[in-house]
Amino acid sequence: MYTLEQTQEFVRKFISENKFTHEPEGLYEPIEYVLSIGGKRLRPVLCVMAFNLFSDDINNVIAPAMGVEVFHNFTLLHDDIMDNADYRRNMPTVHKKWNDNTAILSGDAMMVEAYKQLLKYKGKNFREILEVFTQTALEVCEGQQYDMNFETQLNVTENEYLKMIELKTAVLIAAALKIGSLAAESSMEDAVNLYKYGYNVGMAFQLQDDYLDVFGDFDVFGKKIGGDIISNKKTFLLISALNIAKGETLELLKSTLRDSNIHADKKIKIITDIYIQLGVDKLSTIKMKEFLDNAFIYLDKVNVSEKKKEELKKFAISLSERSN
Amino acid sequence: MYTLEQTQEFVRKFISENKFTHEPEGLYEPIEYVLSIGGKRLRPVLCVMAFNLFSDDINNVIAPAMGVEVFHNFTLLHDDIMDNADYRRNMPTVHKKWNDNTAILSGDAMMVEAYKQLLKYKGKNFREILEVFTQTALEVCEGQQYDMNFETQLNVTENEYLKMIELKTAVLIAAALKIGSLAAESSMEDAVNLYKYGYNVGMAFQLQDDYLDVFGDFDVFGKKIGGDIISNKKTFLLISALNIAKGETLELLKSTLRDSNIHADKKIKIITDIYIQLGVDKLSTIKMKEFLDNAFIYLDKVNVSEKKKEELKKFAISLSERSN
Repeated sequence: MYTLEQTQEFVRKFISENKFTHEPEGLYEPIEYVLSIGGKRLRPVLCVMAFNLFSDDINNVIAPAMGVEVFHNFTLLHDDIMDNADYRRNMPTVHKKWNDNTAILSGDAMMVEAYKQLLKYKGKNFREILEVFTQTALEVCEGQQYDMNFETQLNVTENEYLKMIELKTAVLIAAALKIGSLAAESSMEDAVNLYKYGYNVGMAFQLQDDYLDVFGDFDVFGKKIGGDIISNKKTFLLISALNIAKGETLELLKSTLRDSNIHADKKIKIITDIYIQLGVDKLSTIKMKEFLDNAFIYLDKVNVSEKKKEELKKFAISLSERSN
Repeated sequence: MYTLEQTQEFVRKFISENKFTHEPEGLYEPIEYVLSIGGKRLRPVLCVMAFNLFSDDINNVIAPAMGVEVFHNFTLLHDDIMDNADYRRNMPTVHKKWNDNTAILSGDAMMVEAYKQLLKYKGKNFREILEVFTQTALEVCEGQQYDMNFETQLNVTENEYLKMIELKTAVLIAAALKIGSLAAESSMEDAVNLYKYGYNVGMAFQLQDDYLDVFGDFDVFGKKIGGDIISNKKTFLLISALNIAKGETLELLKSTLRDSNIHADKKIKIITDIYIQLGVDKLSTIKMKEFLDNAFIYLDKVNVSEKKKEELKKFAISLSERSN
């Protein structure tokens, strides 16, 4: 069985050795660019780790693991056009470095490449893996649609927000684990429990992401701090603040959200102060820990030795304590 | 065995009865819109017809046939953003009726839906069909990239142009036939010959499309006549004209292409007149007929009775004589 670090190294090495350098350059260069920038490789690593609970032949699962990672990076590429984001992981986004059309088309090719990776998989449960992947890919699109709807939706409830991040983030992490499990021919019960572990890890991960967007450090986080505040993005923090705030604080919060002439730094300062005053930063951390605890409950149910589960436990904890 | 008309009716009925109406509306409504507008249903019809050469159980091939059609409509949706096209089949394009972000995201979901259709297929050669489809989908993206490259590329040769339309148009039509053939468990030889028939039909089809963009009738064709001329699109007609024209005609052609202030109608008139004067309209028709003849050569090689091939022959001829 491999350690977390060994699995991460295995995935990183595979990605760096399998370049997307074909003709025409204009199509494939942006794909290679996005994939080479890096990131945590969370999904392929979790896919391989789930597989590794049941089997040591991790070369057999790298194809679907890559499929999930390529798909994830495709969604980032297209989301960045839709959000008009300038930077991703401290690097210019594809539509800024090239242009919108290039970002649209390279993204499209990238989604097909995700399936091409999946088709390299020659092991068991081929159809089942494709079905989980395809259903999940649709859910991710649905999540992005809800996220965009929230921009113009006046009241977003906590439940609506949680459903959105479930679709946009958690289900793909969950699917990565289920796919790894299916590739190792685990029982369906184990595959489902690993899916649920992944769902809860994913929910915790996204809550931490929203938290770091406000309370993180630019150099470490790799994205502009306060970006969500500037764009009035309905995050767990903002939704909670709007629910809890009363009187003058609520008025200040609402007027700041409405003020389109306010200086970005001032807006960030006012809203961050309100978050701290109301304690929604702590609420977010508590919610995140709840999901993490749930993740461990489902991991406990998986029918492999405690020792084998240690790396997945360690990984989930490191994600909850991360600063980037 | 079904007639062309019966197959067309079978495909149309299936599409109209299988709606893409799910939540969130903002994501799925544009998909249903694009698919309901219609079009010739060329690819699914050819897929079913290829299958029908070998088997009458055409319900067994409708899933991959739909996959190809959904994918094709996805490419139109995204191409229309990239080309900033206002109309498609006499109806407003998705990015005009909604907006760019909706068109990007609904397109993405549509590509996943294409795979979802393919995954409904429970017959033989499942992996092979997915492989043909995925390889072809990548080629279509490559074709669109070359097409976009041509916008800023000074000299485009006839061969480069033919390679572009091969990737952008012909291979998906070819793949539709191969997929139908594979689903019917034909011999690989027959599947390959049907692919080549489809490739040649596709090339002829695209040449006719370029021809109709200049010499067609708006009400019948469903697109603005002369759109390619206005945007200096490198079509077979323009490339041939640039190759053949000499002296004053070449100068007039080049200066008209360069003139960014010229009135659209005047530009269309000047360039159409040059095309007729040089006879590139006839050259295009000759080239189209060459591809059509090649299509029949490959169709002849398919190991089924002449009678069974009649509908495919009839269809190819009707496409070459079409005015829309």
